[in-house]
Amino acid sequence: MEDKKRPVILITNDDGVFSKGIKTLMDIASRFGDVVVFAPDKVRSGLSSAISANDAILYSKLYSHDGVSVYSASGTPTDCVKLAFYSLFKDRKPDLLLSGINHGSNTSVNSVYSGTIGAALEGCINRVPSVALSLCDHAWNADFSATTPFIEKIIDFVLRDSLSFGTCLNVNFPKGEIKGMKVSRQADAYWDEEFEPRRDKDGFLGYWLVGSFVNREPLNKDTDMWAIDNGYASVVPMKVDMTDLSSCDYLKTKLI
Amino acid sequence: MEDKKRPVILITNDDGVFSKGIKTLMDIASRFGDVVVFAPDKVRSGLSSAISANDAILYSKLYSHDGVSVYSASGTPTDCVKLAFYSLFKDRKPDLLLSGINHGSNTSVNSVYSGTIGAALEGCINRVPSVALSLCDHAWNADFSATTPFIEKIIDFVLRDSLSFGTCLNVNFPKGEIKGMKVSRQADAYWDEEFEPRRDKDGFLGYWLVGSFVNREPLNKDTDMWAIDNGYASVVPMKVDMTDLSSCDYLKTKLI
Repeated sequence: MEDKKRPVILITNDDGVFSKGIKTLMDIASRFGDVVVFAPDKVRSGLSSAISANDAILYSKLYSHDGVSVYSASGTPTDCVKLAFYSLFKDRKPDLLLSGINHGSNTSVNSVYSGTIGAALEGCINRVPSVALSLCDHAWNADFSATTPFIEKIIDFVLRDSLSFGTCLNVNFPKGEIKGMKVSRQADAYWDEEFEPRRDKDGFLGYWLVGSFVNREPLNKDTDMWAIDNGYASVVPMKVDMTDLSSCDYLKTKLI
Repeated sequence: MEDKKRPVILITNDDGVFSKGIKTLMDIASRFGDVVVFAPDKVRSGLSSAISANDAILYSKLYSHDGVSVYSASGTPTDCVKLAFYSLFKDRKPDLLLSGINHGSNTSVNSVYSGTIGAALEGCINRVPSVALSLCDHAWNADFSATTPFIEKIIDFVLRDSLSFGTCLNVNFPKGEIKGMKVSRQADAYWDEEFEPRRDKDGFLGYWLVGSFVNREPLNKDTDMWAIDNGYASVVPMKVDMTDLSSCDYLKTKLI
């Protein structure tokens, strides 16, 4: 009987099943429930909500130990969520989906490109309470220790309170000390793109995406970027529905 | 002097540079301005806003004729927009970005996974008025002819009226006759996923994504799905900012 009450937590990410961030999250989550990890077999950064429409996905179970089962798959983060739901959660959906902890920021416009966010949106589409978690440090051996009490608080909140349908949480932590959490909105920003031309060993010219991040509203205190820049974790509630309702009436008058 | 006044229209898609949909769009757009096509070299469906974070992108010019220049690139639809801006539009942004015409629906939750939509969002992030166009017919030789007058009207509108910052248009056309256009919102829907197991020639077991589309609100007349199901084109204004502002106060009270 007790087994049925213990929450089941599905974890995925976009840095791959062997990253430090996902291991940290497994440790934290396993204190709250049974954990199933279903994550990409390698780094799958920048894949947004991409799905493998034209490729087969292969997956296998790596191990199961102390209430934690770990699977790895060849697909995108969104594929992993879809395949986990299909193969493991047909009869009972997980009580919570956690995506991360990502190595690197998913604030502002970065969330558009992020596979970490894509996975959380997929949970949300399927009515599973979902949270994306990211630390603003790209290093493979980033120090996640300061995030623990905040992640515990968030897991506890979402398991008790659930989330409104169609909304998930995008949580970002600053590098280093964390002063507290701020509920924020996505800052208006873009990447000022540059591409670095490099020739491969056979002389073919390829272009590598580089670029610099430009925040269009650095002074606005209600944004996720302000929170991060000032030492706070940012919590942005994110909707799957991207309709700009405020433009509908204008379009009805002017276009139709 | 006149050259400077003639609009420049950038076109991309996710079905690849050789698809019928993009050729149809090139024909229509070239009546309004100079056209630059910068599109994937092959089918890149389901890639959402994915970027090539860990791969080089190769591109080349295929031809230039009668005010239409055509480039093809190895990256995702979003990569194509970024690389076009970087390589061709450093001094003058295009006046309009068109993405499509997609072979297949990008209504409702499909827009989350769509590379066609990803490309339009990328234009939007960069303050270029952007429109995604899709026909609800997957066939390679789909008949796009009924869409022409509507696309002309939309191009004319956006070139004159621009679009509010951070908002693009997601336009879907029903297959066959089109009764008119409806300004709509994204319907709440999901894919009831199935995966089809198939062994490759060496016996490895792979899973292919299949599934059926489930509309959670088939009776709501203000949705894009209702418009399409009833023979109308749907026009959904889409925002890059996915913040669910309506949840912020609740989270501030309950989580922080």
